[in-house]
Amino acid sequence: MVTRLSTFFLRTLREDPADAEVASHRWLVRAGYIRRQAPGIFAWLPLGLRVKAKIEAIIREEMAGAGAYEVHFPALVPRDPYEQSGRWETYGNGIFRLKDRKDADYLLAPTHEELFTLLVKDLYSSYKDLPLAIYQIQDKYRDEARPRAGLLRGREFTMKDAYSFDSTDEGLDASYQAQRDAYERIFTRLGLEYVIVAADNGLMGGARSEEFLHPTPIGEDTFVRSSGGFAANVEAFTTVVPDAIPFDGLPAPVVFDSPNTPTIATLVDHANASLDAPADGEWTAAHTLKNVVLALTHVDGTRELVIVGIPGDRDIDDKRAEVAFAPAAVEAATAEDFERNPLLVKGYIGPWSETGAILGEESATGIRFLLDPRVVDGTSWITGANIDQKHVHSLVAGRDFSTDGYVEVANVRAGDPAPDGSGPVELARGMEIGHVFQLGRFFAETLGLKVLDENGKLVTVTMGSYGIGVTRILAIIAELNNDAKGLMWPPSVAPFDVHVVAAGKDATVFEVAEKLAADLEAAGVDVLYDDRPKVSPGVKFGDAEIIGVPKIVIVGRGAVDGQVELWDRRTGDRETVPIADALAQLTAR
Amino acid sequence: MVTRLSTFFLRTLREDPADAEVASHRWLVRAGYIRRQAPGIFAWLPLGLRVKAKIEAIIREEMAGAGAYEVHFPALVPRDPYEQSGRWETYGNGIFRLKDRKDADYLLAPTHEELFTLLVKDLYSSYKDLPLAIYQIQDKYRDEARPRAGLLRGREFTMKDAYSFDSTDEGLDASYQAQRDAYERIFTRLGLEYVIVAADNGLMGGARSEEFLHPTPIGEDTFVRSSGGFAANVEAFTTVVPDAIPFDGLPAPVVFDSPNTPTIATLVDHANASLDAPADGEWTAAHTLKNVVLALTHVDGTRELVIVGIPGDRDIDDKRAEVAFAPAAVEAATAEDFERNPLLVKGYIGPWSETGAILGEESATGIRFLLDPRVVDGTSWITGANIDQKHVHSLVAGRDFSTDGYVEVANVRAGDPAPDGSGPVELARGMEIGHVFQLGRFFAETLGLKVLDENGKLVTVTMGSYGIGVTRILAIIAELNNDAKGLMWPPSVAPFDVHVVAAGKDATVFEVAEKLAADLEAAGVDVLYDDRPKVSPGVKFGDAEIIGVPKIVIVGRGAVDGQVELWDRRTGDRETVPIADALAQLTAR
Repeated sequence: MVTRLSTFFLRTLREDPADAEVASHRWLVRAGYIRRQAPGIFAWLPLGLRVKAKIEAIIREEMAGAGAYEVHFPALVPRDPYEQSGRWETYGNGIFRLKDRKDADYLLAPTHEELFTLLVKDLYSSYKDLPLAIYQIQDKYRDEARPRAGLLRGREFTMKDAYSFDSTDEGLDASYQAQRDAYERIFTRLGLEYVIVAADNGLMGGARSEEFLHPTPIGEDTFVRSSGGFAANVEAFTTVVPDAIPFDGLPAPVVFDSPNTPTIATLVDHANASLDAPADGEWTAAHTLKNVVLALTHVDGTRELVIVGIPGDRDIDDKRAEVAFAPAAVEAATAEDFERNPLLVKGYIGPWSETGAILGEESATGIRFLLDPRVVDGTSWITGANIDQKHVHSLVAGRDFSTDGYVEVANVRAGDPAPDGSGPVELARGMEIGHVFQLGRFFAETLGLKVLDENGKLVTVTMGSYGIGVTRILAIIAELNNDAKGLMWPPSVAPFDVHVVAAGKDATVFEVAEKLAADLEAAGVDVLYDDRPKVSPGVKFGDAEIIGVPKIVIVGRGAVDGQVELWDRRTGDRETVPIADALAQLTAR
Repeated sequence: MVTRLSTFFLRTLREDPADAEVASHRWLVRAGYIRRQAPGIFAWLPLGLRVKAKIEAIIREEMAGAGAYEVHFPALVPRDPYEQSGRWETYGNGIFRLKDRKDADYLLAPTHEELFTLLVKDLYSSYKDLPLAIYQIQDKYRDEARPRAGLLRGREFTMKDAYSFDSTDEGLDASYQAQRDAYERIFTRLGLEYVIVAADNGLMGGARSEEFLHPTPIGEDTFVRSSGGFAANVEAFTTVVPDAIPFDGLPAPVVFDSPNTPTIATLVDHANASLDAPADGEWTAAHTLKNVVLALTHVDGTRELVIVGIPGDRDIDDKRAEVAFAPAAVEAATAEDFERNPLLVKGYIGPWSETGAILGEESATGIRFLLDPRVVDGTSWITGANIDQKHVHSLVAGRDFSTDGYVEVANVRAGDPAPDGSGPVELARGMEIGHVFQLGRFFAETLGLKVLDENGKLVTVTMGSYGIGVTRILAIIAELNNDAKGLMWPPSVAPFDVHVVAAGKDATVFEVAEKLAADLEAAGVDVLYDDRPKVSPGVKFGDAEIIGVPKIVIVGRGAVDGQVELWDRRTGDRETVPIADALAQLTAR
C-alpha cells in the first residue's frame, strides 16, 4: 500500500532540538523519526520505526543463516538470577531497580546472560542438545549517569543479543566463528564499513573477544592497527616487552639535588643542565620513570593506593587503566590520599615496594609498586628519590628496585610495535557497532548449567555472547549519512525505497504521480508519495531532502509529456527521463 | 529456510507445570511456547514467538488498511504526564513505579494515552492535520494483585493500542467505525468468533464503548443478549424502568413484629405465615425491598457508607457496582461499619435518607439512600423498619419514602427486557478480545491538545481508543484450540504451516522427507521438519500432536513407493497419498 504524505504521521521541523549534540540526533528528530520522552528515552515515529524494522529484518535473516533461533525475554526480571551471578551488586546504580506490590525486587534488564543460561539449564541436559544458538531483539535499560548523543547512549535501547552454548571449547570456537561471520554479513548489508579489533575479554575468563568498529574520525573509541593486519582496541593492546639488559658495567645510582622539578618537563631540563649528557645525546622524558599514584576502589568498597611506574614520555590511559584494574574502579590519588600518606613525596616519588621505599628514609606498607612492561631488568632511569627536592639517576630496574607486578596502563602511541610482529601501529578512531566474545564457563558455572557428555559425565557448558545495538546502529548510520540538508539513507535500511513528489497543481501531475506510485508499489517497491495538494514544490523538495529516501522522483511540468525527473538524494544528480524508463530503473533489482 | 527439529530450540514436556490453572497455560508451557520467569512474566521461546509474530502481522495489515500508522513509545516513562492526567494517583499500586539515579519518578506504562496525546500536541496544530490514527504494538506492565491463568492475566504483556484524533464528533464517529471494522476483520482472520457488546464508557465521558467478546462457556465475563440483536456486557446493561403506579387506593404502611427474620428468605416465610396473602398469590422475595449497606472508598481516601435498596429477589452484582460507583472502590460494609453506626439495624434496615431513617426513632446523617431503577413511585414493598425485629409492609415508594438517586447495581437475569425493546435477554459468557471506545476530550482537555478549526478558532481534539491484547489473544486462541493431546492452531496463526515427520530409519525416508520439506518451503510454506535421526516415530508423533501445527505429513514406510500420509491435527484424519498430491494439496492457496 502506497504511503501518502497527506495522511502520514509526520511533521518535519525547521529548528534543531535544543539538546542535540550530534548530527544523528539532530536529523532524526528534525526529520520526524524519533521524539524525546525523557533523558535518553525516545518514542519512535513511523519513519523511525520503518528503518528500525529494516535493520532488525537484516539481523533476523543473518541470525537464521547462522542457525540461531529467536526467543524473547521479559524486560522486567526478578533479582534472584542476578543475585546468583553477583551482578545485582556489581551493577551499582547503573541499572533501574524496582519493587512489586509484594516488595519483591526486580530490575529492568540491561542484559540477559543469567536468564539465557537458566532457560537452557531448564530445558536441556545432554551434549546431544548442543550446539545451540539463541538470540533476542529486545528493549534494554541502563540508568546512564549522562545519557547523551540521542540514540548513541540512551537509557532505553534495542539490542540484538545472541548466546551460544557448547559442551566443548572446540564447539565454542565454531559457534563463535558462525556468529562472527554473520556479523560480517550484517554490517556489509547495512553498508557499514567495519574493522574487527581484538578487545579485552573482561572478567568472564573467555578466550576470544572482538569488537566490530566502524572507522571514522568522529568515533568515540580509539583503536590501533598495523599495516600487517593487526587491530585491537587500546584496552586490548599488549606491549611488546624488550629484552632484559645485563647489569654488567651499568653505573651505580646517584642521588642528586633537583630543586623545583616536580614534573617530567622540569626534571628533563634540570638533567640537561646539571648532569653529563647520555650516550644517545641528551636527556629526554623517555629516560625518566614517572611514578603515578592511583587510587582503586574495590568491589567491597575498600580503597587501595598503588604506584605505577611508566616511562616519562607516556601517560596513563584511562581506558587501559580501567580494564587493567577491573573490577576495581580507578582514579588519580587525591590531595587527601597524599595527606594521609606523608611518605608519598609528591613530585619526587621513586620506585616503591610494599616493604617500603627502596630510597628514602622510612618504609611504608600497603602500597603496591607496579611497572609498565617496558621497564625490564637492566633499564636505567632518572626518577624520584622519595625525598623532597631530590631525584636519582642511573637507577637500574631489577638491580636497584623490583616490582610487585607489571600492568598495561601506559598509553599506546603511533609507531609502537604491534604485539604480533606485524610492524608499527597507527591509531585510529571508530564507533563500536558490534561485539562478539567468548564468555566461557562463568555463567554456566555460577548458575549450574551442566550437560552429560558422551561418557555420561556432567560437564559445564561454555558460552559465547554476541551483541549488536540496534538503535545505536541506526543512529550511527544516520550519523554517517547526512549532509547540510538532511538524511541520506543507504538503500538497505531506508524507510522507503522511492519518494515520489507530485510537484505542481495540474491534475495531470497528480494522476501521473498516483499511477507511478501505484505501479512501483505493485512491483514490490516501498513508496512514500507526497500527494499533499496545497503544499508548494519547494517545501516538498525540502521535506524529501530532510527525510532522506535515496531515490526521489519528481513528477512536475514534464508529466504532460510523459517525463519525470529522477533525483539521487546522495549525489544530488537530477535526470529527466520518460516515465517508463523511470519505472524500469526504479524496479530493477 | 526449513526449520529442523534436530537443531531447533525446543523441548516438549511430559508434565503439566505446577502453577497452570488453565489449558492455554498448560499447553503453551508443555509444548515449548513460553516459559515462566516470575509471577505473570514469561519468556517467549521460538515457537511462541512465531505465533505472536503471525498475530502481530495480521494486526499490522489491518491497521494499515484502516489508515493507522505505527509508532512505538517507551515502556519506561516519566511521571509528569501521568501526574497531569491524575492517573499517577488513581493507578494506586496497580502499576510498577521506580526512580532513576537522580531520584526522578518513572513508571512502567500500563497504557500510553497521555504520551500519545502529548506527541500529537507536540507536532500537530491544525484541523487539516486530522483525522489521525496511530498505534503501537508494545509491551505493557501492570502490577496485578493476583497474576494468573498464564498469559491471560500477566504483569508483562503485549498490547496493540491505537488512538484516533479528530477535531469534530462526526470525525471521531468515522475514525471509530474504521477501527471497529478493522477489528472485525482481525478477529475473522484470527478465526475468533466474536460478539460486539455495548460496554461501560467509563469516566472519560466519551459516547460509545464496545467490547469484542468471544462467546464461550469458559469465559470470565458475563454478557447479555436478546434474540433481537441487543448485546451488552453486564456493566453496561441498563434496566428498563417500569411505569409509575398511582398512589390512589394503595393501603397504608403497617409495621409488624418479625422476630428472627434478618434475611429475605426468613422474611418471606414469616410474611406468608403471618400476613394476608397478596393479590398475586403468595409473598415472594420479589415483594421485598432488600437494603444493602455498601462502603465506598473515594479517590481521596475517604470512606462513605451508602444504602442501596433493590428488589429482594436480586443481588448486588459486584462488577455493576464497581462501574456504578467508579472511581470510588466499593465493598460490603464491615462489622466495624455497623458498630460505628448503631442506627443501622442489621437485618432490619429500611428505606433511609440523608436526613435520617424515615422509620425508626432517630435520624442519622451522611448516609445516602439509593434505589434500583425498578423501585418506581407507587410500588409497594415489605422491608425493614429500621427497628430490631420489626419490618413494615405496604410501604410505597414515592409516598412513604424517597431516594437520593437511582443506581444500576442489581444483577441482570435471563428474561429481563433488553433496554432497546428487542425482547427478553439471555446471559452468556465470553472472553474479552478487544475494546473500542470513544475517549472523547478527557485527555486532550487535560493535556491541552487543541487545534485550529476552519475558522481559526482553537478547538479541543476528540479521541478514540482501540485495544487488543496480543499475548492475551494468543492465549485465548490456545485456550479454544486444544485437545487431550496438545494444541491445534488455526492455520492463520500456526507457528508453521506444515509439520513434516521423517518416521523411519531408512535413508529413503529422510531423503524423501528432506526433499518434500525443501519443496514446500520453496513454495512459500513454513515448514517444521522433524529430522531427528534417533527419535522413534511414536515420540515424533507425540511431539507433532502437542505442538499443534495444523497439517502434518508423515514420511514413513510408504516413502519407497512414493507415498506419504497426510494427517490433519484437528480431525485426526489420516490419508495416504502420492507425494506429488501431498505437495499440490499443501501448497494450494
